[in-house]
Amino acid sequence: MSDTTRPGEFELIARYFAPIAGAGGLGLVDDAGLLKPARGYETVVTTDALVAGEHFFADDPAASIARKALAVNLSDLAAKGAKPEGFVLSLALPHGWTEAWLADFAQGLARIAGEGACPLIGGDTVSTPGPLILSITAFGSVPAGRMVPRSGAKPGDVILVSGTIGDGALGLQAHGPGKLAWVARLSEEHRHFLADRYLHPQPRLALATALQVHASAAMDVSDGLVGDLAKLLKASKAGAEIDLDMVPLSAAARAAIMADPALAELAWTGGDDYEILCTASEREYLSLIVAAEAAGVALVAIGRVTDEGAVNYREKGRARSFAQGSFAHF
Amino acid sequence: MSDTTRPGEFELIARYFAPIAGAGGLGLVDDAGLLKPARGYETVVTTDALVAGEHFFADDPAASIARKALAVNLSDLAAKGAKPEGFVLSLALPHGWTEAWLADFAQGLARIAGEGACPLIGGDTVSTPGPLILSITAFGSVPAGRMVPRSGAKPGDVILVSGTIGDGALGLQAHGPGKLAWVARLSEEHRHFLADRYLHPQPRLALATALQVHASAAMDVSDGLVGDLAKLLKASKAGAEIDLDMVPLSAAARAAIMADPALAELAWTGGDDYEILCTASEREYLSLIVAAEAAGVALVAIGRVTDEGAVNYREKGRARSFAQGSFAHF
Repeated sequence: MSDTTRPGEFELIARYFAPIAGAGGLGLVDDAGLLKPARGYETVVTTDALVAGEHFFADDPAASIARKALAVNLSDLAAKGAKPEGFVLSLALPHGWTEAWLADFAQGLARIAGEGACPLIGGDTVSTPGPLILSITAFGSVPAGRMVPRSGAKPGDVILVSGTIGDGALGLQAHGPGKLAWVARLSEEHRHFLADRYLHPQPRLALATALQVHASAAMDVSDGLVGDLAKLLKASKAGAEIDLDMVPLSAAARAAIMADPALAELAWTGGDDYEILCTASEREYLSLIVAAEAAGVALVAIGRVTDEGAVNYREKGRARSFAQGSFAHF
Repeated sequence: MSDTTRPGEFELIARYFAPIAGAGGLGLVDDAGLLKPARGYETVVTTDALVAGEHFFADDPAASIARKALAVNLSDLAAKGAKPEGFVLSLALPHGWTEAWLADFAQGLARIAGEGACPLIGGDTVSTPGPLILSITAFGSVPAGRMVPRSGAKPGDVILVSGTIGDGALGLQAHGPGKLAWVARLSEEHRHFLADRYLHPQPRLALATALQVHASAAMDVSDGLVGDLAKLLKASKAGAEIDLDMVPLSAAARAAIMADPALAELAWTGGDDYEILCTASEREYLSLIVAAEAAGVALVAIGRVTDEGAVNYREKGRARSFAQGSFAHF
């Protein structure tokens, strides 16, 4: 810092981060923040780290990077049926960061924190010779004993997903450098839609209460539907029958698959959807769909939980298998 | 990962981290952990990130790195008067990590987690082309409204510190490459003592209850006594009179200062002590000292809070000022 006129850590916190802080952040001048769950509630804790060049492009807009870093954590809270209560940010800034970048970052963070009603309650900022790394730990509240686990799926339960699947992985290709042939063939509107879905995931917070009341198991789809379903079923010690034709696709994703049919596999297995994958009993799943619709989110049934170990996928009536289960950032 | 035979993220978690997990970690197979504060308690949240080459040496023993990463967070909890309840770990592993390194890291983490009764409840592991970065968010419980703030120091309060000051900064020089003249003049025992204090900070968890009951303000000394005292007083909108001759020094630190008197300033301003700096009212401070002693930790009075803006330091009866207030990692 000595060779520049950039402000020090404490000025940066006061200028850019204190305005995002909630009461539990204690003005970001203490060593700690406070969580005060209401009586009868528990705190759900989730952590996600994002690395520049791996989970986003280093030259993505700073506001978009901030948005994504918090959104992927809010997505986890939503999947657990939890109401956001706050988050802490650990920010490893690469050498050469500018105050303009940080101002843009803080503005994006403030916006998603406001949308999610999830104030900053603490954090740490360090400097790294490596790429930008953001690690967020987010907190949500659920009535005691009501967190929606990964492990609650029972044979006979209906398997559902929210929104549309595949936009994130297709959007990564539409947004990234080195445009592919199919991207060039897409309309500007569809290209933009997919890139925006990759850049600005929408955490399904509106679903949290419906999931908490009606779902037997849930997780967010961050590493691809096929791989994440395998994780949910493994945790639940169950299998599934999935009808791939029921997996909801956006108009843009359908156009992309029309341009290149091989992209269907990418849509099913690629990451970055941040939709909700969940299960509900035969008795509850219609109520879940209705409650989700009332919250403004479409939930679609794509299959059933079975007591077999395997997941059997069918597409147009024929069995289908996947070589690569899931996208792993690690 | 594709070019090696290293296990995947899920196997690593199961093998090395699941054994450190507490009940709130839900076996580390869910997307989230759970905190269940007892009725009438609140959750104190603290975050500290450590970067290889900045906060520790990349070739320090992996177990020592793990220990330090959690210890510095436990130190914050202790300063807030909180009892540890759990932590989440965000681990950005540099390319070229080995399973042996990770096994050693997990063993060190398990040990400090056990000592602090602070189980792992979640985390995320990512890969980075940059240096190793560890970010830990730790959780502690305090009776509602009883977190010890930075901002509670009142004029007339006594200022105290725990243990001994300066060992961390001196230990960095004793431990690091490029041995200085004074280090060579130290006994092997003193060199080892100081290096160990730098490598293996001892969080003052035993002080938490005494602080919670008797202290008006507290923080841990991580960036140097002089700079951290300035922060505490700024948060408390107060000043202080400090008698530097009262600042407790270890025998090793005294030997170092004997070898090179200029090191006294390093002891007072250098970082990495992880001792507790606190204030207590005239009425409470003796009870605080007695309670700390009962907990096995020495607390020594080094000055008084004043209502002036400034901190007046005296050494051997003469005023003393510091050019550089505090060591900043950022």
